[in-house]
Amino acid sequence: MEELKFINYITKKFKTKKPVIKGIGDDCAVIDYSISKYLLLACDMIVEGTHFTKKAKPYDIGWKAMAINISDIAAMGGIPKYALVSVGIPKKKGLGYLKEITKGVEVICRKFNISVIGGDTNSSDVTVLNVTLIGEVEKKNLITRSGAKVGDLIFVTGVLGEGKRKHLNFLPRLKEARILAKNYKISSMIDLSDGLSLDLNRLTRASKVGACIYKSLIPLSEKSEPLKKALTAGEDFELLFTASIGESKKIIKRMGDKEDLPISLIGEVMNKRFGVKLIEEEGRATRLAPAGYHHL
Amino acid sequence: MEELKFINYITKKFKTKKPVIKGIGDDCAVIDYSISKYLLLACDMIVEGTHFTKKAKPYDIGWKAMAINISDIAAMGGIPKYALVSVGIPKKKGLGYLKEITKGVEVICRKFNISVIGGDTNSSDVTVLNVTLIGEVEKKNLITRSGAKVGDLIFVTGVLGEGKRKHLNFLPRLKEARILAKNYKISSMIDLSDGLSLDLNRLTRASKVGACIYKSLIPLSEKSEPLKKALTAGEDFELLFTASIGESKKIIKRMGDKEDLPISLIGEVMNKRFGVKLIEEEGRATRLAPAGYHHL
Repeated sequence: MEELKFINYITKKFKTKKPVIKGIGDDCAVIDYSISKYLLLACDMIVEGTHFTKKAKPYDIGWKAMAINISDIAAMGGIPKYALVSVGIPKKKGLGYLKEITKGVEVICRKFNISVIGGDTNSSDVTVLNVTLIGEVEKKNLITRSGAKVGDLIFVTGVLGEGKRKHLNFLPRLKEARILAKNYKISSMIDLSDGLSLDLNRLTRASKVGACIYKSLIPLSEKSEPLKKALTAGEDFELLFTASIGESKKIIKRMGDKEDLPISLIGEVMNKRFGVKLIEEEGRATRLAPAGYHHL
Repeated sequence: MEELKFINYITKKFKTKKPVIKGIGDDCAVIDYSISKYLLLACDMIVEGTHFTKKAKPYDIGWKAMAINISDIAAMGGIPKYALVSVGIPKKKGLGYLKEITKGVEVICRKFNISVIGGDTNSSDVTVLNVTLIGEVEKKNLITRSGAKVGDLIFVTGVLGEGKRKHLNFLPRLKEARILAKNYKISSMIDLSDGLSLDLNRLTRASKVGACIYKSLIPLSEKSEPLKKALTAGEDFELLFTASIGESKKIIKRMGDKEDLPISLIGEVMNKRFGVKLIEEEGRATRLAPAGYHHL
């Protein structure tokens, strides 16, 4: 079963109406909040056996549950503020285990200035955490998946293919997202939770455009998975974003000047008919299918 | 492990600061929203084996996950508005099972005019649902657990001890809560998720008061559990609330006039030293310990 299908199914059931600006189908839901700000709502669940193994350290589980939601708020250009944390843990794990999960949650929350304002604890046969994260964004800085325009350039932060190694203790790209949101006109953005192939297809679908990505431009570190796997492996939690050529020039100029914005230009937004394609070194274009890491 | 202890533990870690009006420790978190309104945030998780059995109908699971959160919003005097729904289900259950859960969510949401604006779907060894429900309340109508005053009278809606029979398809007391919040000065309120014994102790602790409850006044139906069990069985999801004697007179007058407010006077708020006691028919007072349904 594919999450995309389910999300399409449920999206039709609940049409958005004011003051809901964006419902299901972006990294966060968006609600009108004040004259100058929107409220952002992210909600992600992680489950033992799907998002982490039995052997995962409870501290890391707490960290990850919060980090993936911070990444969603970042992807819309916002700042996380308040969190609601639900925990289900096996009775036999005991209070020490729960305290370690809490510690992981606490440390990342302090780092990003987030207040935990509610939650729920339960016994469960497997460990499960759900975080709802509430953030804010200035209306002028809101970035969605649906604003990419033909001719825009496509960028990605960091390096891809390290999710398998880093997914339990990655640092969400909040700082980078805020630099981008505040200083440049970012036409669209999404976080790479399920792999470049799937998440780029989500972005192009929402924006009603196509894309071409140059294989030689995709940033991989020595420790990354091989390219093909890196495109579908998921859990990189880097940011994929687009900007007009004019804005891109400014962004690229800054990239050269400062080391606080590790980004790579990887491709260009095409029209919808072109589809979503990977351009190999020899110039051959192959379809980049919406395949990726499915959590269901 | 006791949820109360864990909540106390985590509460100390995260102090509330403006605009967070109430953090952990009430039915909902409360955030400043506009000149006249607060935002309410409820977050409850239900897990197979703890809150429902393997045999529970998926439609009922979806209904219940939303209903318990509506009950939390009701307990603060508010109106539910938007929901984020996270689902974890075993792969083998298939799309039909997920659709039935969604249908349960959808039907109760339509009934209470709630929009589902986000969510997450995952595979999981056991079925687990988490709902975050966002509501609003006029500032003047906010009701918390902490406002009970010595001399106030104590009321409960409906009948107790039917949770075991009705917990999967109960109707949250939203209508009754709104009638109370809008027309009377309700000094404190809580929903009975874990049994009168435990939830009354939560209310008195938050209000720094004691209470005496008259055994003969506790409303039980023929189908209810025996009293002792009814006090600790949990999942009644009725409302427990307090009001001054003056307000109580008005409430009781209305009770006689209309059938839309099925409430019973069950006791009186005492000073903290008195403790929380049950008065038997022969006048003997026994301590009503904070025992109840523990989900952990």
